Amino acid sequence: MAYELYYWPGIQGRGEFVRLALEEAGADYVDVARGPKGIRAMMRMMDEGPHPSFAPPFLKDGARVIGQTAAILLYLGARHSLAPKDPDGGLWTHQIQLTLGDFITEAHDTHHPVGSSLYYEDQKAEALRRASDFRLNRIPKFLDWFNTLLARNPSGPRHLVGGSLSYVDLSLFQIVEGLSHAFPRAIQDALGAVPHVAALHHAVANRPRLKAYLASDRRIPFNEEGIFRHYPELDD
Amino acid sequence: MAYELYYWPGIQGRGEFVRLALEEAGADYVDVARGPKGIRAMMRMMDEGPHPSFAPPFLKDGARVIGQTAAILLYLGARHSLAPKDPDGGLWTHQIQLTLGDFITEAHDTHHPVGSSLYYEDQKAEALRRASDFRLNRIPKFLDWFNTLLARNPSGPRHLVGGSLSYVDLSLFQIVEGLSHAFPRAIQDALGAVPHVAALHHAVANRPRLKAYLASDRRIPFNEEGIFRHYPELDD
Repeated sequence: MAYELYYWPGIQGRGEFVRLALEEAGADYVDVARGPKGIRAMMRMMDEGPHPSFAPPFLKDGARVIGQTAAILLYLGARHSLAPKDPDGGLWTHQIQLTLGDFITEAHDTHHPVGSSLYYEDQKAEALRRASDFRLNRIPKFLDWFNTLLARNPSGPRHLVGGSLSYVDLSLFQIVEGLSHAFPRAIQDALGAVPHVAALHHAVANRPRLKAYLASDRRIPFNEEGIFRHYPELDD
Repeated sequence: MAYELYYWPGIQGRGEFVRLALEEAGADYVDVARGPKGIRAMMRMMDEGPHPSFAPPFLKDGARVIGQTAAILLYLGARHSLAPKDPDGGLWTHQIQLTLGDFITEAHDTHHPVGSSLYYEDQKAEALRRASDFRLNRIPKFLDWFNTLLARNPSGPRHLVGGSLSYVDLSLFQIVEGLSHAFPRAIQDALGAVPHVAALHHAVANRPRLKAYLASDRRIPFNEEGIFRHYPELDD
């Protein structure tokens, strides 16, 4: 039975981290809210049953419903060889994903430092300050940590964990993609200092399944409704 | 061999969610940075080995080092009967913890909406706006979700998952404690609408091991250096 992914239909957002794992795994899935059932089916599902999710994305696998991006990837990673099989390796991979998740939240908050319920235009002054701190301090600190993990990987710097692709490689790729959309100037400077991250980003983009996905209309283009938004004033 | 917990010595912070689990489990642990080795031992450990953590807290168990609060609790929960044994129940518990983690980050960001590297005094205007949104929109939305989980728990509303205590009950207790320190007025209003959450908070506080811990000097008092800070102007 196909997985059902539930996420906002107009943006990549957090759902994209799940989509990349499903695409790389070649898994059969339905992106429910982008289909005829639309957002209403998602909103209904979100409030149903004993395991409601606080927010999208969530994944339905038969009778199971799993929310929270990192938890979904923990689940999929074990089922589709996108994470080490041993418990320690699996937990380490998950720990990296949780740190990627913190990075994603901070990237989002550059344009919404006051609150998600307000428009960007109503928090632009605050956004300018937060984005400056993010560009100057947070992007370099996070990317340096990922670069260190790649440099220290006993199996070599091509992957974050072990000698083959795992879902955290996909997530790091997606963050570099997102930052390249949102902060093209800042990321250009930052990537020069983290060559292993830049190489991983390039390698993931050229994996056959990923490459086909990225060129397809299943890949929603970046836009100014998602996590990674290009507001030139925030990159200056 | 005793666990080694590494966290900032002067605050409850995210380390406290781990401490509560260790205390409730009656586990043997050393709070390393609060001992003679101090913060320097923590900073050294953070940068060592193949699995460095991006930030404290992290837990050392023999040769294993695990970072990220939710990952540590996933690990401890399975070892100390603080989570269901079946995989689905364990993942559901973890999903709840990840949502608690999002709530914690938002609580922190009320006083640091621009950046962690700046003083509160240098982002007070932004904090006033963010705290207002947090009090009016986010606290009620999060607490209502936890109350719904308690109401829908097939084993009854005394616990978030199943018929016995799990680490997410401890974490929800700690968030209510923290919000009671930081936003005494807002939380008083909010708790009236979520009776199951209020009852859980009361019940956890009265568990024998927790009660002893909370009265001991191992429990660091709340202060204005941690996640939950009482700045009266943010609660007004």
